[in-house]
Amino acid sequence: MSQGEPSIFSLIIDGQLPCHKVYEDDSVFAFLDINPCSTGHTLVVPKEQATTLDQLSDESAAAIGTVLPRISRAILEVTGATDFNVLQNNGEAAFQSVFHVHFHIIPKHEDGSGLAWPFITTQLDPEEGKTLAESIRKLLG
Amino acid sequence: MSQGEPSIFSLIIDGQLPCHKVYEDDSVFAFLDINPCSTGHTLVVPKEQATTLDQLSDESAAAIGTVLPRISRAILEVTGATDFNVLQNNGEAAFQSVFHVHFHIIPKHEDGSGLAWPFITTQLDPEEGKTLAESIRKLLG
Repeated sequence: MSQGEPSIFSLIIDGQLPCHKVYEDDSVFAFLDINPCSTGHTLVVPKEQATTLDQLSDESAAAIGTVLPRISRAILEVTGATDFNVLQNNGEAAFQSVFHVHFHIIPKHEDGSGLAWPFITTQLDPEEGKTLAESIRKLLG
Repeated sequence: MSQGEPSIFSLIIDGQLPCHKVYEDDSVFAFLDINPCSTGHTLVVPKEQATTLDQLSDESAAAIGTVLPRISRAILEVTGATDFNVLQNNGEAAFQSVFHVHFHIIPKHEDGSGLAWPFITTQLDPEEGKTLAESIRKLLG
């Protein structure tokens, strides 16, 4: 686990920064990516502030593993996508930009939006984000 | 869970096809990718034959989550990489080619090899694979 300043994700988890939350339990927090590759792009984050996956505790890793299928199901149901990618980056050379472990769930839509290279991101519309997050959260409630 | 014919990964897990195994427990099986993006590229597979992550049971998903950090640590230690990506593809449009859930652990090396787009893969040298898998397996034993 990294020490020191809270990450931007820890601030989101603590409610000090806003987000469009889709899921929360004792160990895991999930919310819409503010720069999505596609509609429904979600970040699944351990509350434990580990920098990279190899530094994450077994407990937090198990907790995230457990919820990945059910969060994916809810995203697919709400967005209508059937295909999706899960991506988790560790280290700058591996495209990590926020240094707190996070799993991307990125739906692949029929218009081709989804995981691509270089990463093609958009800006999440706040109103659309609110509606989308509410719909996903409802399925996970 | 999908029914019907065993996947190529189920045949590997059952020992009917060879592989360079790095890890096994009651629920999870991991081995070197035969077409690696970089040295140490490993596939982590649930023994449960689910086609995509959204169809995987919570139990298998938790089991995979638990071991991802420790398998990653062993790969990093053996290969000397510090950065890596975890990628898990679901559906043809999302680049899935074997229809049995699998997580790629792909080290990013200083020579630039690692996750790239389009996927740049090589052929695993059998002797190198044997030595590499033994070294990783030893750390996980």
